[in-house]
Amino acid sequence: MLKTNRERLKNSIELFSQFGATENNGVTRLSLSHEDILARNKLKETCEQLGMIVTTDDMGTMYATLPGKSNNLPIVMGSHLDSVIKGGRFDGVLGVLTALEAVQTIIDAGLELNHPLTIVNFTNEEGARFEPSLMASGVLSGKFEKEKMLASTDVEGVTFEQALKESGYEGDIANRLTDAHAYLELHIEQGPVLEHYETEIGIVEGVLGMVCYDITLTGESNHAGTTPISMRKDSMFAAMQIISILQNKLKQLPDDLVYTIGRINAYPNIHTVIPNKVTFSLESRHQDPSVIAQVEQIIFDLPKEIENCQLSYSKLWSRDTVHFAPEVVGAVAASADDLGYSSRHMYSGAGHDAQFIAGYIPSTMIFVPSANGYSHREDEYTSFEECSKGADVLVNAVLKVAESSVLPVNSVSMK
Amino acid sequence: MLKTNRERLKNSIELFSQFGATENNGVTRLSLSHEDILARNKLKETCEQLGMIVTTDDMGTMYATLPGKSNNLPIVMGSHLDSVIKGGRFDGVLGVLTALEAVQTIIDAGLELNHPLTIVNFTNEEGARFEPSLMASGVLSGKFEKEKMLASTDVEGVTFEQALKESGYEGDIANRLTDAHAYLELHIEQGPVLEHYETEIGIVEGVLGMVCYDITLTGESNHAGTTPISMRKDSMFAAMQIISILQNKLKQLPDDLVYTIGRINAYPNIHTVIPNKVTFSLESRHQDPSVIAQVEQIIFDLPKEIENCQLSYSKLWSRDTVHFAPEVVGAVAASADDLGYSSRHMYSGAGHDAQFIAGYIPSTMIFVPSANGYSHREDEYTSFEECSKGADVLVNAVLKVAESSVLPVNSVSMK
Repeated sequence: MLKTNRERLKNSIELFSQFGATENNGVTRLSLSHEDILARNKLKETCEQLGMIVTTDDMGTMYATLPGKSNNLPIVMGSHLDSVIKGGRFDGVLGVLTALEAVQTIIDAGLELNHPLTIVNFTNEEGARFEPSLMASGVLSGKFEKEKMLASTDVEGVTFEQALKESGYEGDIANRLTDAHAYLELHIEQGPVLEHYETEIGIVEGVLGMVCYDITLTGESNHAGTTPISMRKDSMFAAMQIISILQNKLKQLPDDLVYTIGRINAYPNIHTVIPNKVTFSLESRHQDPSVIAQVEQIIFDLPKEIENCQLSYSKLWSRDTVHFAPEVVGAVAASADDLGYSSRHMYSGAGHDAQFIAGYIPSTMIFVPSANGYSHREDEYTSFEECSKGADVLVNAVLKVAESSVLPVNSVSMK
Repeated sequence: MLKTNRERLKNSIELFSQFGATENNGVTRLSLSHEDILARNKLKETCEQLGMIVTTDDMGTMYATLPGKSNNLPIVMGSHLDSVIKGGRFDGVLGVLTALEAVQTIIDAGLELNHPLTIVNFTNEEGARFEPSLMASGVLSGKFEKEKMLASTDVEGVTFEQALKESGYEGDIANRLTDAHAYLELHIEQGPVLEHYETEIGIVEGVLGMVCYDITLTGESNHAGTTPISMRKDSMFAAMQIISILQNKLKQLPDDLVYTIGRINAYPNIHTVIPNKVTFSLESRHQDPSVIAQVEQIIFDLPKEIENCQLSYSKLWSRDTVHFAPEVVGAVAASADDLGYSSRHMYSGAGHDAQFIAGYIPSTMIFVPSANGYSHREDEYTSFEECSKGADVLVNAVLKVAESSVLPVNSVSMK
């Protein structure tokens, strides 16, 4: 079993956390910003020093490739260097830096694999500067139209196209990631499960399917002091009843279903006025499409009239469950076992570039614990030891995958 | 019984609704705006043509006085000419125009009363341009400090003091309304009760006491996809449970209690993030202080911890119930009866200048129906017939009050 160099990985994490460092130990490194370009430059320089060939594609995604013994398809590892505003030092960048550490470990060990090794840095994963998130992997996988992406603007009105041209990282469409032997992305869990179960490694089987609806109750605004309760069309109380119905029914579905009312807006939202409209979002995720279908059925079955108010709903979006390639997942699980690290099979509740890449390249992810489940905040934290164990699993999984013949993208149905 | 001139009142309402008329048949006549000044000028001109003496006080409140047979204290009628943005053609202005109609009717009838008759137009009742509402009557009654009021600014940064000086309606502190035989304010109900019971006249016994609290649930934000339900501190679901408890308990209080959750804010209010904080307002009104005390006790008794979230609350403000002077209320009731108009005793759920004036002058209000209970909107509506019946009650109540000797301000306790 190979072991990565803990000290070198620590230094590498600390170095990259300087690019866009915030006062409170976090990072603001928006895609294609000055800070992102500094981080990209450092990645390029480091990879080139290792004898890797660095290219970029037409969306600015970076690829650093170490040649293998033969012209086989590369094994790709990586994630993204961009962050949200006041994000943490681990989300995204850890997947790139553990990939770099894996390559260095393989070089140090004097191994030459049957496959080239490629480190990828996907442009604009977060979507924090330019919407949508997963932009570059979305274009690669045909989910997003490139022209629309180029036109996406940041808050200052700068288009993605402009920012890309000015970054110096606009490359050739010919360099796009179109095929690979496998893709492995290490990432912080962004949830509390590994920590809760005191587990070191998350073996990620896929990305949860989800639905998101807006539900609206429409009543009538009137003066809060002059309108008797019995004569009201109070959309707030109607919304509360609907939420209560939803909760009672959702509770009866499997325990691992997650559902969230993250957004609620009342109109006119004045304490002395009965709200004429309340809209809230209901977002729910589960790996089993039939459970998601039950969530939707609960929404469809809501009363259309309640407390003298009208109910309507609209689907904002949905995502089918993505199932990762079992052979690649298996290589990760076996590596964790070989290393004696505790592990847990799980699905990712969050979205990642891997979910798009998995559509055409055999893929998986490796999770490491997030303290308190925090992410997208400055106090996001994973210990260097935990990061290092993740890197150990990554490099050994790569060795296992390199020994496999052609891998299937994923199985037809997981359940 | 005197009857007012329906045609003249109709013309008068239509004329004044031109000052600040909106596209949709409403009115925007913010306090001391150009439109308000046009309306003030017209009131002044009309009153002077009737032989009334027009003065203004140091807050710009206008007084038009018709001398009586003797130097007795005046009987004061009126309301306010200002409106909210996109308000209606009746709120406030109707109290001034029915007062004007009452004076004209008395002049037409050749009557000379024992008391001077004063029409009052309180400055900035709505508080829609300069906060707070009831500004001028608040200063008159000692509830508000004049210096603070002068410093109040509109959205463009103009102070009330500047606007007052520029209006030409800044007058002498000596002209303030410091005493009167009685004060009668006719107003639209701003609620649906009179219409619901097909009643022409509201005999207003007082203004409801109220309390307003902000209630806050504090949990922890986490990713909506990666955090199992059992590991959440979801302040939204905590808030929903608290609202459910509140509703169940408030329902058990008297039927005529009103309570409203008009404002709710979730943070960060993003569909994919579990809210770490939800704050909502609970506002409640009732004439009986012991019922309001029960509402507060229900808030005090709320669990301080629920769904792993912390509960806190803060009192935003409260108002004690105002009881109007029974003799003046009685004069209104007797006038409605004499005229054969259907009437109903009620409390005002909304705030009015009369609630402050009632503290030192025997006062009451007369309500006329509001179609659908609408107010503060362009489609606010009271038929000319209903307005006219209100004016009839007003003028006859004034005659009755003029016959009374000294009136007590109000009884010590109504219940």
